Amino acid sequence: MLRARNAVLNLPTYRPPLAGRDGLRLDFNENTAGCSPRVLARLRELTAEEIARYPERESVEAVVASHLEIEPGELLLTNGIDEAIHLLCGTFLEPGDDVLIVVPTFAMYEILTAATGANVIFVPAEEGFRFPTSKLLASITARTRLIAIANPNNPTGAVADQADLLEIARRAPQAAMLLDEAYFEFYGKTLMPSWRDLPNLFVARTFSKAYGMAGLRVGVLAGNPGQISMVLRVSSPYNVNGVALACLPEALLDGEYVRNYVREVRQGREELQQAFRRWSIPCWPSEANFVLASFGELKNAFVESMRARGILVRDRSCDYGCDGCIRVTLGTLAQTARLLQALDETLAGLRANALGATEGAAR
Amino acid sequence: MLRARNAVLNLPTYRPPLAGRDGLRLDFNENTAGCSPRVLARLRELTAEEIARYPERESVEAVVASHLEIEPGELLLTNGIDEAIHLLCGTFLEPGDDVLIVVPTFAMYEILTAATGANVIFVPAEEGFRFPTSKLLASITARTRLIAIANPNNPTGAVADQADLLEIARRAPQAAMLLDEAYFEFYGKTLMPSWRDLPNLFVARTFSKAYGMAGLRVGVLAGNPGQISMVLRVSSPYNVNGVALACLPEALLDGEYVRNYVREVRQGREELQQAFRRWSIPCWPSEANFVLASFGELKNAFVESMRARGILVRDRSCDYGCDGCIRVTLGTLAQTARLLQALDETLAGLRANALGATEGAAR
Repeated sequence: MLRARNAVLNLPTYRPPLAGRDGLRLDFNENTAGCSPRVLARLRELTAEEIARYPERESVEAVVASHLEIEPGELLLTNGIDEAIHLLCGTFLEPGDDVLIVVPTFAMYEILTAATGANVIFVPAEEGFRFPTSKLLASITARTRLIAIANPNNPTGAVADQADLLEIARRAPQAAMLLDEAYFEFYGKTLMPSWRDLPNLFVARTFSKAYGMAGLRVGVLAGNPGQISMVLRVSSPYNVNGVALACLPEALLDGEYVRNYVREVRQGREELQQAFRRWSIPCWPSEANFVLASFGELKNAFVESMRARGILVRDRSCDYGCDGCIRVTLGTLAQTARLLQALDETLAGLRANALGATEGAAR
Repeated sequence: MLRARNAVLNLPTYRPPLAGRDGLRLDFNENTAGCSPRVLARLRELTAEEIARYPERESVEAVVASHLEIEPGELLLTNGIDEAIHLLCGTFLEPGDDVLIVVPTFAMYEILTAATGANVIFVPAEEGFRFPTSKLLASITARTRLIAIANPNNPTGAVADQADLLEIARRAPQAAMLLDEAYFEFYGKTLMPSWRDLPNLFVARTFSKAYGMAGLRVGVLAGNPGQISMVLRVSSPYNVNGVALACLPEALLDGEYVRNYVREVRQGREELQQAFRRWSIPCWPSEANFVLASFGELKNAFVESMRARGILVRDRSCDYGCDGCIRVTLGTLAQTARLLQALDETLAGLRANALGATEGAAR
């Protein structure tokens, strides 16, 4: 009788709520304005013959490397950051190895690393979701083989000190350290190309967030060329589709589109945080395109009332330390205005009977 | 110092010759006519907002399941068959497990299974690349955990008897048996849905070959629902891009396009085999969209001369038992006419000095 590996039998299934996402989708940290018109124009030029061809990644990797001001041998394009994580697991993790993950964080780190049979060790964030540098350093042992850190973090928006991140990489030279900069464009700080001093450091980027290309599935795994060459060995040569490869150079040429979008998101983020403060809803500082806020017992009513107003937000209450928390993605300023109006209406409706209790419970 | 796993350090890098593929590309078993116009029309309707969204696989999986006359829970769409292989490895293979592979065959079986740390056991094809049923059955042990078989096989075009394949699955109930039907449309026989009796059987399909969508990267892994649910646990929810998901239903609606293409390929296959016979070039029976032929010492000269005439063919001489062999993909009948003319010119040019020697060496 065919039986899955024990590591798989013990694994939870990750099922994001994908169906019925009608409305203003502020629940997935997508770019809510869409991709650049240049990307769309290139997509529409594709021919039937181009669609029929196996994708050729290398020439586009050279363009992306140039954009990132690194060498082509220092990166690999991936089928989203999910595949970058998967490939790092395949390259470096043996069953029984230790993996360090700060929680709460992006769910796929746990799923993909635990699936290999590695031991996943959770390092809880400090008070206020601050990055637990000391606890993480203290958790490093000779068995540590992978450390996955999102910076800015998801779902909190919190960031770690750049010097602390470098120190972690330095203190675990036997471990691959994945610094997931999926939300880099909203933050502005990177450790790229620190792998030139710390060859165990990998930096991941994505075109799914600020660039508005989540449907095309393309991410970047960057690092030391010798290490990247090992990752290449376990990857398929056709991991990234040809539409993404055709469109990516156009996306990079339209930096203005991304900068304008990021500017609106950051201004909207400030407006949303002000609104939460006005309503005495606890929320946390964020350097990403979303804000995590604590609604306590009002959580379900808030989600439902926002949905009734055509706005989707994401319940994150199952994440570590996030009981009663909702994550709200920011979009354009026009969308933020719509968000804030729905928020005001919703909270005005909910306040009378329960808001006092929430403030106490969810600080 | 970060060091890749031993299994990875010992792994070869698979580097298909992707650059400079100008000309009539009869080297990759692609559909050389391109995808259906309906696919292209749907692609061109995509909006910037659709591109920005995370792909939603499930509704399209239901459409594909209906097309294949199986249940939605019996399949998973994958980022090409490469990912299907990768996911089966992640679900079922522990380091030290045995994998059985018939050689010669598709290179990714060895690479992706060996990368897990499994022992890859090669079962050589019989004389004339016939499927080695007895040797394969004799190779099954309690340690066998994965058996990967392409049917029709690549690069030979050979097929196995359907009853033999079922017997292999029956005799290794503890092993996942992957039947890779990438070239199904050119052959017509399938073991789908025999997993209802043999829950260790998986069948893979692709839209990269007959359907002409290699650039979109979409394959199917089908099998027993309980086993598929295990595979789902190790996969990313966003493994297949949104363009592929949008276009796939259109491809399925245009069955006539695929049938016409397959008809031309099959007729061209017969014409090419006749030409090889006319020139006394040994070749093997094929049920796929390509023919393997033995050019012996003329191999390099043949490839170069065809390239000079604008036609790319694939040197397979590094594959097991394929010394001196070239694989030629069939396209439309017009393309086959062009192929045959170049073939005649090339062989007429090469024949004078060396053809006699080749016939002796490469029979």
